[in-house]
Amino acid sequence: MEMVVGFVGLGAMGGEMVRRLLAAGRKVVGYNRTRSKARPLLDAGMGWGDSPRAVAEAAGAVFTMVADTAALHAVTEGPDGILAGLGPGKIYIDTSTVSPAASRALAARVAERGARMLDAPVSGSTVTVREGRLSFMVGGEKAACDAVTPILLEIGARVTYVGGHGQGALMKIATNLNLAAQMLAFSEGMLLAEKGGIPRELAAEVLLNSAIASPMLRYRGPFVLRDPEEVLFTVNMMQKDMLLALEMGRQLDVPLPTTAVANEFLTAARAIGLEDKDFAAMYEALARLSGRPR
Amino acid sequence: MEMVVGFVGLGAMGGEMVRRLLAAGRKVVGYNRTRSKARPLLDAGMGWGDSPRAVAEAAGAVFTMVADTAALHAVTEGPDGILAGLGPGKIYIDTSTVSPAASRALAARVAERGARMLDAPVSGSTVTVREGRLSFMVGGEKAACDAVTPILLEIGARVTYVGGHGQGALMKIATNLNLAAQMLAFSEGMLLAEKGGIPRELAAEVLLNSAIASPMLRYRGPFVLRDPEEVLFTVNMMQKDMLLALEMGRQLDVPLPTTAVANEFLTAARAIGLEDKDFAAMYEALARLSGRPR
Amino acid sequence: MEMVVGFVGLGAMGGEMVRRLLAAGRKVVGYNRTRSKARPLLDAGMGWGDSPRAVAEAAGAVFTMVADTAALHAVTEGPDGILAGLGPGKIYIDTSTVSPAASRALAARVAERGARMLDAPVSGSTVTVREGRLSFMVGGEKAACDAVTPILLEIGARVTYVGGHGQGALMKIATNLNLAAQMLAFSEGMLLAEKGGIPRELAAEVLLNSAIASPMLRYRGPFVLRDPEEVLFTVNMMQKDMLLALEMGRQLDVPLPTTAVANEFLTAARAIGLEDKDFAAMYEALARLSGRPR
Amino acid sequence: MEMVVGFVGLGAMGGEMVRRLLAAGRKVVGYNRTRSKARPLLDAGMGWGDSPRAVAEAAGAVFTMVADTAALHAVTEGPDGILAGLGPGKIYIDTSTVSPAASRALAARVAERGARMLDAPVSGSTVTVREGRLSFMVGGEKAACDAVTPILLEIGARVTYVGGHGQGALMKIATNLNLAAQMLAFSEGMLLAEKGGIPRELAAEVLLNSAIASPMLRYRGPFVLRDPEEVLFTVNMMQKDMLLALEMGRQLDVPLPTTAVANEFLTAARAIGLEDKDFAAMYEALARLSGRPR
Repeated sequence: MEMVVGFVGLGAMGGEMVRRLLAAGRKVVGYNRTRSKARPLLDAGMGWGDSPRAVAEAAGAVFTMVADTAALHAVTEGPDGILAGLGPGKIYIDTSTVSPAASRALAARVAERGARMLDAPVSGSTVTVREGRLSFMVGGEKAACDAVTPILLEIGARVTYVGGHGQGALMKIATNLNLAAQMLAFSEGMLLAEKGGIPRELAAEVLLNSAIASPMLRYRGPFVLRDPEEVLFTVNMMQKDMLLALEMGRQLDVPLPTTAVANEFLTAARAIGLEDKDFAAMYEALARLSGRPR
Repeated sequence: MEMVVGFVGLGAMGGEMVRRLLAAGRKVVGYNRTRSKARPLLDAGMGWGDSPRAVAEAAGAVFTMVADTAALHAVTEGPDGILAGLGPGKIYIDTSTVSPAASRALAARVAERGARMLDAPVSGSTVTVREGRLSFMVGGEKAACDAVTPILLEIGARVTYVGGHGQGALMKIATNLNLAAQMLAFSEGMLLAEKGGIPRELAAEVLLNSAIASPMLRYRGPFVLRDPEEVLFTVNMMQKDMLLALEMGRQLDVPLPTTAVANEFLTAARAIGLEDKDFAAMYEALARLSGRPR
Repeated sequence: MEMVVGFVGLGAMGGEMVRRLLAAGRKVVGYNRTRSKARPLLDAGMGWGDSPRAVAEAAGAVFTMVADTAALHAVTEGPDGILAGLGPGKIYIDTSTVSPAASRALAARVAERGARMLDAPVSGSTVTVREGRLSFMVGGEKAACDAVTPILLEIGARVTYVGGHGQGALMKIATNLNLAAQMLAFSEGMLLAEKGGIPRELAAEVLLNSAIASPMLRYRGPFVLRDPEEVLFTVNMMQKDMLLALEMGRQLDVPLPTTAVANEFLTAARAIGLEDKDFAAMYEALARLSGRPR
Repeated sequence: MEMVVGFVGLGAMGGEMVRRLLAAGRKVVGYNRTRSKARPLLDAGMGWGDSPRAVAEAAGAVFTMVADTAALHAVTEGPDGILAGLGPGKIYIDTSTVSPAASRALAARVAERGARMLDAPVSGSTVTVREGRLSFMVGGEKAACDAVTPILLEIGARVTYVGGHGQGALMKIATNLNLAAQMLAFSEGMLLAEKGGIPRELAAEVLLNSAIASPMLRYRGPFVLRDPEEVLFTVNMMQKDMLLALEMGRQLDVPLPTTAVANEFLTAARAIGLEDKDFAAMYEALARLSGRPR
């Protein structure tokens, strides 16, 4: 329990993950671009690092949880970046969703500093984290994965080592393409029931208690009835992951028919102005195509 | 607990449902085209009716669970059919998956006999039944639904009344279209992971413990690794439901993009000779398109 | 030139076909449900038969050109139907688009009368007929096809014998599935150009003078700019053919991905109230999904 | 007729275009990475420039026709690049297919040199060029377009000015997305006919003489019967254009359903090893999904 953990990126997901670490008695030093957002975590005992580099210097295991490759670049590169603070013995764990290629490139930079990197994206929402059911899919060196597994298990419930650098990222992308396809199919079922005269609330209740009710649908399905209080995974964010999947499909020669079709409905959701809504807004795009004006 | 239950169609699903009723102490009279298949149920205390009509005459509530509209016709019509055995006070519950129109037509015939019909399809596999978690979506007269709800709850865990005649059938179709779409998306994720170098078993493990893991996928996902011992829901059966969904989509003016695409991969599974395999065989169709010969 | 031709179904297409026959000096006896529509043809020299049967009795070669299987049934069956007027030596040519199975069933009924049937659907619009460029794809007995080829060439420019009964129908269905797919792809190109700032008229001009400009697109593409004066092939009619194609795809185990997707956009066109517009209305459905209210 | 034309990129298309210019009596100075390929053109009277820069220096109007953005960069940048040879009064016309953004960026660089750029992609194959039927869709300054229109009309038959910088590129992308969708739909029709028993040659003959027979299909359709002598537009090249289209669709918020689906079948063609075949190989991918091993 003695290794200090650094954490860069204290948004909704990152924040919940740190909270789990603190609850487990882990010493955590954190950094966020907007310090004010970290206030509750600081109150809960988290230490503050003045830069990503400072966090990396203070910790044996450094985590990042950011939105995309550009954000990852912003916190890792430069004189104040994580890379500058890494050195032999340290392990850097990126839990963001980026391309395997971007992850492998970063792993090479980390190795140049004498440290080791793991790509360890997660499956689940903030609710999943809070309930301690988060899963990690980890790519990189097996020994490095073993070394930080106790820490990962303070955050979540399951750690699966899937292979070398970038394989965690690949596995995450392979998982996430299912999200949009499931959401679109769910929308098809909902609209079929509704236009056939079954009240929307009732249709959702039946579907979300049936064999198709994945954890994602149980969480997100109700958003077609009413907007969520907080939007954590927007149409734009979902499409980012779909584009990664489609790109990997082309690289690996795997046709992805439902992914391709679902992606076009994310575009449609954007086209009708819903790009910053939860990606359950795919339902609205299909509803519009079914003749119901929004 | 005193109402006698009749049950016509003692296949895998029907058989398990009767088993639940018997376990609850319910008196059941059953009929199956092939009597030998009913042996274990008869040993467990089920009574035998010599025809669907005899079953209907002996029972206050009569159930059917058969494969399709043709099979339904076979057990309801004619001198030995259920209709001939129905009369005032009796309730006939069809748990098969047929079109709302076929169900409504049958309900009218039942009403002519002075009895009442409910369309009450179920969501779940034999495993779901055995675990007592089966859900019913019920269409018909609300009072008739209330009257048999105690019996339905001996079989399963949840009864949702969704509206008039045929609405249970519609709700089932709206649910089932998700099955094939989820299976195809899952196959896309699996093949992406595999062709990217992640062992198939490992990829399945991660996906089936992630946010996309619906009960259906947790049950059926492993079939891409090894064939199931018993095939309960074939490519052909799944396509039957998809065609019902696509037909409803046209009638109700709801475009069904993932349903339409997934249906074509069921056709592809048939084209490569897998029509009688569990519909997880969609994975094989996509694998073939990904360059892997079967 | 001496064989009398009977023609049942004098709508837009049928009327133009008869006009070609008359212009070639052929003696034609016609029938149409609504006689008033036949006025101009009668003025042009066509004889009138009081029923489909009367037409069949008066002619050596009888043609039908009707909307669907139901309409075909209406003019062939019954005491006043074509079948009743057929006999040895006569050849019956159906140029409608129906399923191969329906066509084969009718051919068997024709054979019972001692006559021979050909399924000979056509590719092209009324414009194509008028310009003498119509193509026939003919199924049935080769000798029967040869016997009527001179007549077919009075109407159009090309006769292709494709095989036994129903094969003409199959070939037509295989052709027509392309129409909706081409129209949807054209709409995608149009909207991409337009939303990128290229005036709609200009975009259409470029596309319709490029390598993608099939005769169908050159005819129908301009309808996205302004409604046609006369609607000859509606969304509903196009969808009828797509459903025949999808059904054949399932029977013959051929996955039809673009057909399936395009068909859903025909449903969408229906959903926004355009079912009786020319099927170029698929463009409007996609436009709506692109954020432009109709 | 006095303006000297420079031409960089003397592959199949570029070569034919130069041949047209020479035939019109135009003075042309050309450059190609592999000089040997230019031999026949030099024999036909074309002058040689030792570098793209030399070509630009020698000409009033400079053309490029290369494979992609990377190739374009290679011939425009650097001390020997076209940009270095441009200056006031000169017009640079790129006829390649690249993204509007890439084209606009290059136009800005050209403007820095005091010259003007047009993006002027073409629609058609080498056959189209040879027959003098090539179309240009031109973006950039209207006056510049007018200035070179006489030259463009020596090469082809039609010049359409579609707007500012990048609009020619956009229009080309909007055109080309139709190619793959049409090819896939054609393959669906072919396989339906064939599996239904119509000989492949015959099915192609009917389809290619019907209302769906675009110039592209008339050229490429026969490739499903036998490989072309020379492959000019491969699966990989077609997919490059599809990716540009899908990217533009996302930028402009236009869902592209048939484009997305057809693109996955290009991936499938790659997966079965056909990436360097003419993109008519989409047919083989669908044939495989229809149960026919290649």
